[in-house]
Amino acid sequence: MMSTTTQTIHNFSAGPCILPQSVMQQASDAVLELNGSGLSLIEMSHRSKAFVEVMEEARSLVRSELQLPDRYEVLFLQGGASLGFLTTALNFTPVDGSMDYAVTGTWAKKALKEAKKMGQAQALTSSEDTGFDRIPALPGTSNASAVHITTNNTIFGTQYAGDPVVDKPLVADMSSDIFSRPVDIERYSCIYAGAQKNMGPAGTVLYIYDKEQAGQSGRDIPSYLDLQVHADKDSMFNTPPVFAIYTSMLTLRWLKAEGGVKAMQQRNAAKADCIYSEIDRNPLFNGFADTGSRSVMNATFTAQDDSHTPLFLEACAAAGINGIKGHRSVGGFRASMYNALPLSSVKVLAEVMQEFERTHG
Amino acid sequence: MMSTTTQTIHNFSAGPCILPQSVMQQASDAVLELNGSGLSLIEMSHRSKAFVEVMEEARSLVRSELQLPDRYEVLFLQGGASLGFLTTALNFTPVDGSMDYAVTGTWAKKALKEAKKMGQAQALTSSEDTGFDRIPALPGTSNASAVHITTNNTIFGTQYAGDPVVDKPLVADMSSDIFSRPVDIERYSCIYAGAQKNMGPAGTVLYIYDKEQAGQSGRDIPSYLDLQVHADKDSMFNTPPVFAIYTSMLTLRWLKAEGGVKAMQQRNAAKADCIYSEIDRNPLFNGFADTGSRSVMNATFTAQDDSHTPLFLEACAAAGINGIKGHRSVGGFRASMYNALPLSSVKVLAEVMQEFERTHG
Repeated sequence: MMSTTTQTIHNFSAGPCILPQSVMQQASDAVLELNGSGLSLIEMSHRSKAFVEVMEEARSLVRSELQLPDRYEVLFLQGGASLGFLTTALNFTPVDGSMDYAVTGTWAKKALKEAKKMGQAQALTSSEDTGFDRIPALPGTSNASAVHITTNNTIFGTQYAGDPVVDKPLVADMSSDIFSRPVDIERYSCIYAGAQKNMGPAGTVLYIYDKEQAGQSGRDIPSYLDLQVHADKDSMFNTPPVFAIYTSMLTLRWLKAEGGVKAMQQRNAAKADCIYSEIDRNPLFNGFADTGSRSVMNATFTAQDDSHTPLFLEACAAAGINGIKGHRSVGGFRASMYNALPLSSVKVLAEVMQEFERTHG
Repeated sequence: MMSTTTQTIHNFSAGPCILPQSVMQQASDAVLELNGSGLSLIEMSHRSKAFVEVMEEARSLVRSELQLPDRYEVLFLQGGASLGFLTTALNFTPVDGSMDYAVTGTWAKKALKEAKKMGQAQALTSSEDTGFDRIPALPGTSNASAVHITTNNTIFGTQYAGDPVVDKPLVADMSSDIFSRPVDIERYSCIYAGAQKNMGPAGTVLYIYDKEQAGQSGRDIPSYLDLQVHADKDSMFNTPPVFAIYTSMLTLRWLKAEGGVKAMQQRNAAKADCIYSEIDRNPLFNGFADTGSRSVMNATFTAQDDSHTPLFLEACAAAGINGIKGHRSVGGFRASMYNALPLSSVKVLAEVMQEFERTHG
């Protein structure tokens, strides 16, 4: 039941967001019937051989695509990064220790807020005084037991340029840039990420962590929040969100077939170059983020003339561009360019900006 | 891509489980494109008008089908009932109070275990000494601040015959029998239920609660576990599991079109009569649960002769019966007969039992 409209939609949504068309087709098929089993993916037991294989393939693909050493565990859980704020604080802050937070945006601030409810936590650095327009340098040393960062700030369009080095276990919320580039995994004790950007649909959250660093908090952690409890059950402590995990597995298969995270890094760099070049060239638009902190995933920009904002949104809508309106915290526009977004869509956006300059400049 | 096999599959899976075929078809369609929007359900913003309407229709259908008074809130969250054990304990046990638990099975026991991690909790009654083969009478009075029950015990095949009366706020895990019958909602302060039985696919959990009874625990509850936080954001505190909620909404639409919970109660009674009559009549099988505590949703039974167990499972497989193997805690067989399972499937099972008697009796 595809749309009869012939216009291509360019999906710049910040998340949930564009996924590969082949993944959508296969996910749709599986909701009718999984691999000739006679049963829908969503009506079979999660303990069935068919679904256990899906879960194991998903975990295995995370492991191979990020080149994880054996000591890292991979889990697919629920509750998004929002529950992850709590889970990571409980699992990686010793009961008599504390966690340092790099406060680089809305989600980082929320992570710190949750951690404070469970124990000692404080800001190590913050860019709040400049409206979160940059990633402040991360000090290489911390007096806390662990350090937490948010690698990409979807709302403000800022991103760490690489994998930081700190002298304490590093916990990273990578919800909006995981699988967009290779990661030096040895620098992280824990990575967690809501699926709904580069990995799959909303409804599951990935945890990757060094088993040697976990389980040392000395806390009596509630079962669902205890990573060890889930690991002991091979990520099946309770009924998993089968559709979200299956579709994430399909997206990871696609990632592998397309050349993996190295290929994504090249493609994403080309897309970012395309849009940032236009933002810098076009006198009608201003980039929001400090140039040294720009995100490859989310480009944030505003109109030089406020009255142009609604007009540019109309021009985008007319060109089939979806999800370009900026978050209310920043205003203006946000172009989210996750893995599945083709360069051709970014080129269309750049052309609309050029045309807008010709007609409104 | 339907199977080429012509044999009907009779899906007795305990959950995730059978859903209406029309729901599967519509969910599959929406993964390709939602209502002519040009976008897949899973690639659009959860803040889009299209998805907000889905969430509101789902909440509204819960409200109308269970005839909820205005003071009850409806939320679709994540983490299953397993996280619900923690959430309900935190929201309904005052910091200086306690919760009484009716321990009627594996899940009830787990609920009590989680509650003990967060504060004072104890068993009010238990059937563990008889292998959870019955629902002990619930005392009408409790010295605790609130009482927790598990209305249907999927593993053991036992169920409360109606809505109990207690003199304290009553919290109920209805994961495996919600929407199977009308509920006297005034008797409950909170009902929670994982979706993956009568309501939809795995990946979301429903909370229904009396707003006047909530928010009085005096605890500083972590955000994701605080029902009030989710209610303030209309069940969109963070990115919701869109596919699971959309498919639950479709199942609730189906429920309404089929005559609602009263019609389901009649159908489910007919299915239960069919299978329990055969269990009681057939000398080769024994019912597991005490007859006064039998579940309408899950019929548990064993072979009179242990050596018959694998043979009967083979006979079921040959007849296209899926998911009939009993949980390892009980052994034998379990016939889960959720709303979407037709009476015709139960009749097929009863016929296989009769044929088994003729060939092995």
